[in-house]
Amino acid sequence: MVAGAEQTVAVIGLGSMGQGIAQSLLRAGFTVTGYDIDAQATARLAAAGGALAASPAAAAQGAGVVVVVVVTAAQTEAVLFGADGAAASMLPQGVILSSATMSPAEAGRLAAQADARNLHYLDAPISGGAARAATGGLTVMASGSEAAFDRAAPALAALAQKVYRLGAAPGIGAAFKIINQLLAGVHIAAACEAITLARRLDLDIAKVYEVITASAGNSWMFENRMPHVLAGDYTAHSAIDIFAKDLGIVSEIGRERRFPLPIAAGALQMFLMASAAGMGRDDDSSVARLIAQITGLDLPGVERPA
Amino acid sequence: MVAGAEQTVAVIGLGSMGQGIAQSLLRAGFTVTGYDIDAQATARLAAAGGALAASPAAAAQGAGVVVVVVVTAAQTEAVLFGADGAAASMLPQGVILSSATMSPAEAGRLAAQADARNLHYLDAPISGGAARAATGGLTVMASGSEAAFDRAAPALAALAQKVYRLGAAPGIGAAFKIINQLLAGVHIAAACEAITLARRLDLDIAKVYEVITASAGNSWMFENRMPHVLAGDYTAHSAIDIFAKDLGIVSEIGRERRFPLPIAAGALQMFLMASAAGMGRDDDSSVARLIAQITGLDLPGVERPA
Repeated sequence: MVAGAEQTVAVIGLGSMGQGIAQSLLRAGFTVTGYDIDAQATARLAAAGGALAASPAAAAQGAGVVVVVVVTAAQTEAVLFGADGAAASMLPQGVILSSATMSPAEAGRLAAQADARNLHYLDAPISGGAARAATGGLTVMASGSEAAFDRAAPALAALAQKVYRLGAAPGIGAAFKIINQLLAGVHIAAACEAITLARRLDLDIAKVYEVITASAGNSWMFENRMPHVLAGDYTAHSAIDIFAKDLGIVSEIGRERRFPLPIAAGALQMFLMASAAGMGRDDDSSVARLIAQITGLDLPGVERPA
Repeated sequence: MVAGAEQTVAVIGLGSMGQGIAQSLLRAGFTVTGYDIDAQATARLAAAGGALAASPAAAAQGAGVVVVVVVTAAQTEAVLFGADGAAASMLPQGVILSSATMSPAEAGRLAAQADARNLHYLDAPISGGAARAATGGLTVMASGSEAAFDRAAPALAALAQKVYRLGAAPGIGAAFKIINQLLAGVHIAAACEAITLARRLDLDIAKVYEVITASAGNSWMFENRMPHVLAGDYTAHSAIDIFAKDLGIVSEIGRERRFPLPIAAGALQMFLMASAAGMGRDDDSSVARLIAQITGLDLPGVERPA
């Protein structure tokens, strides 16, 4: 890799997370080229001063760092190693920062493909949500070689507030993210169950929010998501289908390893139910809306049968 | 009630919570008489300067405030209104501060019995654990009349850092506590499931604790209970059977109100499983130990079959 090449970054995937990452990199002085299949997403980056490309390969031309912020392992593989994939046009010894939530085994397979192409691979899932992505305040749970971390360090410093170096082997970062998503998904489902039960018991749910966030029943997700339910605003910050996918990966890992995960399995069913009811692209707090619809509960923003 | 009578307090039930409450009241200058069926518990209060009584009725003699810190509604009813119960010897217009977790309906029935005896009843569940009880730092989620709150105010100020006045009707305090316990119980079960899966994936679970407590997967219970699992120390701070009981009440309310609670139901089964495996009086984080035993997982403090 040529000197300074890590200052040229491609961001593949410009959803709410990728967009924030790209703009944080721009603010920090990186040369950023973005790619997304959605024209609206690319337009937002262009307005912020980023260059646009017509394919992952074009975006990665001359880049020392490629940040992949798509949703699945299959999408990650396609944009890196498929037709017009980024890997073919990256600089030799460039580093791939792979952020989609996936199983440790999938992260290992992608890292092996990068290795075969003389590229570095950082298994680098992210946490923190769109608001923190926009301000460069993400948490990154990463594993990879020293060389990969060194080359990615300037970009990581621009997009994350906290970078955990969790080991050398690909898959460790993915595994940490899986544990986080298990908890986060269960906590959202439990929060929705609790707030709707509170409403059913005729409690003032704004007061419930105040009391619980100051009590032992609190969780990061309860505190973060329940304002959407109180406001009856189910505009997606993070969608139901993201957790249907992530808890699906959790469940699959459990089956593969013969490890029972009954609580995560129950939460997965709630996200699948909400998705089946047509809320897949709505905010993940829609589990509360689903429960309200099923039970005929009077909850803000929820239509009831006449 | 005679002037200043609220300075004389009886504490019925001297377990880890009641003991801390009694000692916090003593430190604040109250005259405190305690009662417990367990001689060891009463000895601890005596060592701290509290008076002891041979029955709830004897403890409540001349008391303007009676704090009941037993485990169930049935125990609360027995120590208040049963043979040698406290209600018979309290001062007229005295206030009962009832802290056991119970259903709103049970709180209503107890309040009606107090009312019939010319006593005030505060439906006043507590949250915060033994450590906060010892320092007078509890959270109280209470409902009751203005008169009940006024009379209990000095005692509440001594035992709690935060007192929520949630309404006039008995049952509202109980309902808030039920919502808190639903979340707390689910979070413990989920934390135990996640930390054991992390171990199964060969992650460094101390590092998992560090990363999760700084991430969106965090909960108050994960942060508070998982150190017990990391240390392999299952000495009860709060026992498995407490959550088997509290989530049992949650499930019962769900059935009564025809309100589905699938996540809470799953968590309840984990506490019942741990109780069935002989861990009922051990720390509630023993759900992790149970999972480790079932799956043959190498976890601190867990015996594995040879």
